[in-house]
Amino acid sequence: MILGRIVGTVVSTRKDDKLAGAKLLVVRAVDPRASADSPKKTQASYLIAVDTVDAGVGDKVLVVSGSSARMAAGLKDTPVDAAIVGVVDTVEIED
Amino acid sequence: MILGRIVGTVVSTRKDDKLAGAKLLVVRAVDPRASADSPKKTQASYLIAVDTVDAGVGDKVLVVSGSSARMAAGLKDTPVDAAIVGVVDTVEIED
Amino acid sequence: MILGRIVGTVVSTRKDDKLAGAKLLVVRAVDPRASADSPKKTQASYLIAVDTVDAGVGDKVLVVSGSSARMAAGLKDTPVDAAIVGVVDTVEIED
Amino acid sequence: MILGRIVGTVVSTRKDDKLAGAKLLVVRAVDPRASADSPKKTQASYLIAVDTVDAGVGDKVLVVSGSSARMAAGLKDTPVDAAIVGVVDTVEIED
Amino acid sequence: MILGRIVGTVVSTRKDDKLAGAKLLVVRAVDPRASADSPKKTQASYLIAVDTVDAGVGDKVLVVSGSSARMAAGLKDTPVDAAIVGVVDTVEIED
Repeated sequence: MILGRIVGTVVSTRKDDKLAGAKLLVVRAVDPRASADSPKKTQASYLIAVDTVDAGVGDKVLVVSGSSARMAAGLKDTPVDAAIVGVVDTVEIED
Repeated sequence: MILGRIVGTVVSTRKDDKLAGAKLLVVRAVDPRASADSPKKTQASYLIAVDTVDAGVGDKVLVVSGSSARMAAGLKDTPVDAAIVGVVDTVEIED
Repeated sequence: MILGRIVGTVVSTRKDDKLAGAKLLVVRAVDPRASADSPKKTQASYLIAVDTVDAGVGDKVLVVSGSSARMAAGLKDTPVDAAIVGVVDTVEIED
Repeated sequence: MILGRIVGTVVSTRKDDKLAGAKLLVVRAVDPRASADSPKKTQASYLIAVDTVDAGVGDKVLVVSGSSARMAAGLKDTPVDAAIVGVVDTVEIED
Repeated sequence: MILGRIVGTVVSTRKDDKLAGAKLLVVRAVDPRASADSPKKTQASYLIAVDTVDAGVGDKVLVVSGSSARMAAGLKDTPVDAAIVGVVDTVEIED
């Protein structure tokens, strides 16, 4: 999984039927070491993930990718390759 | 998933039987932050995806990759690793 | 999927039983925008794919990766993560 | 699989039900050649993995990614794309 | 699949039960064009793969990744995302 920060939303009216009602969020990957997010946003990496834990813009979250995204609650057999499966309280690094 | 812009088409006559009738589109990955597309096309990333939502060249779309592409309508058991599953109306970023 | 150019062959005598008879080809990823292939071969990306459409060296092809490669004709349950599933006639780009 | 060094922990209270009790660890990818870890931490790559072998911060571990992470003990059908499946005793390189 | 050179071994005593007896090898990705291996080892890419064809250090091999690694002989349902499925005799490139 990766850590991410929710930074936006996507609206898509014409989409696969199985995505009806899915909340599509823009997630920016964040470095686990950064207490505050890294300032190098020009090189930031973004993906679109489906929320499954009632997360919102600004939250730091846990994102699962690939076929495992379909194991998240409510996403069985959906055409989804990234899901938000946790809201992160704290990250502790000893590196 | 990623956001992409449909920028072209691929014609392949000799192909896997299960791909018969599939509309093969060239998609350029786009940065969710860009209201207009990024100008750095020299470093752009492209992939070929199968359309499942009647999208066309110029559309901004949602692309699902990997095994989850086979969950899109009509792609069960097909040898496809990227599918267009939504036409994007708007992207809102608060980054 | 990606576009590729078949640039070579691999011979492996001692291999997984399920790969017996598989035609192993070296594929160079090509940029869909290039009418001729890109000259920057020093940075080229290569992979080994199993041919399923009777393609040969020099052909421009469609390559599917990951579990979806096993959906190609004849590759069910084989240890293969990349398959050539189409010979490309034309690519049209409006970028 | 990749080699990694466990460098931290993640706490997430609100998460997918199937992740209840999962120990979420921050893993830094390490170069197999390095007897000591590489000093170039600015370019380090991190991921979040679920521990399945009672590993802890400081351990060098084996991490499996993708759908195969769900084959690790106790992770069947969970939304997890990276699992720690071994504590590494030694790595020998003849390169 | 990718071409690789086996350059080392990994010993892990405490590991997932399904990995008992698995031979864990360190593989360096090699460029198919190089008759001898590339000298740029500082930028080399490494992964840990399970041997299924009785390969050894120094061999040039074919490595399959992702869920397809579990299709290799003896790896069904194991937490393995990379398997050595062939020893390479020759690679011919016309690029």
